[in-house]
Amino acid sequence: MGRVTDSTRIRTVRVRDGKLYAGRKGDHVAVEEPLDIRLNGQQLSLTMRTPGNDVELIHGFLHAEGLIRDREDVAEARYCDGAVVDAGSGFAQNTYNVMDFTTTRPQLLPQVARAFTTTSACGVCGAESIDAVRQKSRYTLLQSWVADPHVILRAARELSDQQAVFARTGGVHAAALVDLEGNLLVVREDVGRHNAVDKVIGWALLEDRLPLRDCFLLVSSRASFEIVQKACMAGIPLVACVSAASSLAVETAREFGQTLVGFTRAREDGDGRMNLYTHPERLDLSAAEG
Amino acid sequence: MGRVTDSTRIRTVRVRDGKLYAGRKGDHVAVEEPLDIRLNGQQLSLTMRTPGNDVELIHGFLHAEGLIRDREDVAEARYCDGAVVDAGSGFAQNTYNVMDFTTTRPQLLPQVARAFTTTSACGVCGAESIDAVRQKSRYTLLQSWVADPHVILRAARELSDQQAVFARTGGVHAAALVDLEGNLLVVREDVGRHNAVDKVIGWALLEDRLPLRDCFLLVSSRASFEIVQKACMAGIPLVACVSAASSLAVETAREFGQTLVGFTRAREDGDGRMNLYTHPERLDLSAAEG
Repeated sequence: MGRVTDSTRIRTVRVRDGKLYAGRKGDHVAVEEPLDIRLNGQQLSLTMRTPGNDVELIHGFLHAEGLIRDREDVAEARYCDGAVVDAGSGFAQNTYNVMDFTTTRPQLLPQVARAFTTTSACGVCGAESIDAVRQKSRYTLLQSWVADPHVILRAARELSDQQAVFARTGGVHAAALVDLEGNLLVVREDVGRHNAVDKVIGWALLEDRLPLRDCFLLVSSRASFEIVQKACMAGIPLVACVSAASSLAVETAREFGQTLVGFTRAREDGDGRMNLYTHPERLDLSAAEG
Repeated sequence: MGRVTDSTRIRTVRVRDGKLYAGRKGDHVAVEEPLDIRLNGQQLSLTMRTPGNDVELIHGFLHAEGLIRDREDVAEARYCDGAVVDAGSGFAQNTYNVMDFTTTRPQLLPQVARAFTTTSACGVCGAESIDAVRQKSRYTLLQSWVADPHVILRAARELSDQQAVFARTGGVHAAALVDLEGNLLVVREDVGRHNAVDKVIGWALLEDRLPLRDCFLLVSSRASFEIVQKACMAGIPLVACVSAASSLAVETAREFGQTLVGFTRAREDGDGRMNLYTHPERLDLSAAEG
């Protein structure tokens, strides 16, 4: 279970009775890594998952898609070498993120090759996933401003007030672009986290506002690799999420110079708290007590 | 915004001081429908989303994948006719779930056709998505037993106790298979909801336990179409989720004879509540007061 959680150091920020407090502590994040599923030698799917029980995961996935019926339909399941080649020895190192399934019923397989890949910004390990983003991104995230923690909390409170659909259904995620005064420029909701983020960034693109250097992205959900990736591509220097961040979201944000804030919990009275996973220098903690 | 939420009738179940109460009420669910994204005439992605702001959604998605850079890269964006043909007139009816984007920079497009499709169990409308599951599924969900609401609440409480990774990270979802006595047969956690479900069903497949007629599926998250689909494929008659259900999850469960339970909230003292979206006959409410 060693790869299921990762330990990391975070800054904690808290507002109590209007007063700002900051601290440091060790924390744990859920591990997120790509899994490259190959079926009879062809790439079938590249999905982000928490390592562990990969054989079960692929059996369940293939069954849900109607590609296998029972255990006997799988002739072999094995990890194959990942594409991470050691510079010194030249040998490929197994990342345990590439798995090959051989089925005994190829007649069950339609033309599904590559049909399930969820995002192209993947690789067989986290570092390759980050590289894929770097190759595609056009913007660097400059350290041009510092944000006021009170502004982030106020925006989080306003987003939850504005979540009209959520209030009625409890079933959708929201994303918002927020300027440094705390104004919500655009709010979108969707059953899919990534869709809500695509909608707000799509709005900004249509408004000719990219790169989004003077905004931050606020999401009502967790921060996964995909959310951080989309924000990096749009040049957004700070992402604040209401829930937790994954290991690969933290690594990607760290690598790109993006400030990643998690567990942004705002109360009605203006108090609240948040955890800073990366680049805390973009948050104004100068008035904070220890 | 009419398609963003759907109204539905539910049964409410509540346990207070150990006593069972049942009621009926109108409720709203978030709409989930497939969106077929076509780029320069080729299918690029089939994703489940909440209708609305589709043009923004696709701009954002294409930008995150590095396929467009700005507004000028998109020459045309239009809804095309869906594949739903009216039996009487023979005319195709627009579902507003198929959108064609034409870009002015085809040189930016790598070999990505069909590379982003998340699941094959889609269609251009909810009914087609349900048909796709019907074509692939082998099991019928028989009405062979009734479950005790107290057992579901007890299992939900135990799942949250067992969520070891969640307790440390706050960032993963859990899925469990539970028998009718409330025993958790298997518990798996993952950053992805669908992965956790694939893992427990993959476990059952490897144990030769399919179809899972005497189990229910418990998930710590929302119930989307994908979750219900996977449960139908495995022959699971009842799905209980801790959070909300989407419109397409409700329709699919109703169609397949599956009992869908949402907002399963269990308290330490044994009390709690849940909402019944479909097929309430599989829950034993005979002792309930109105």
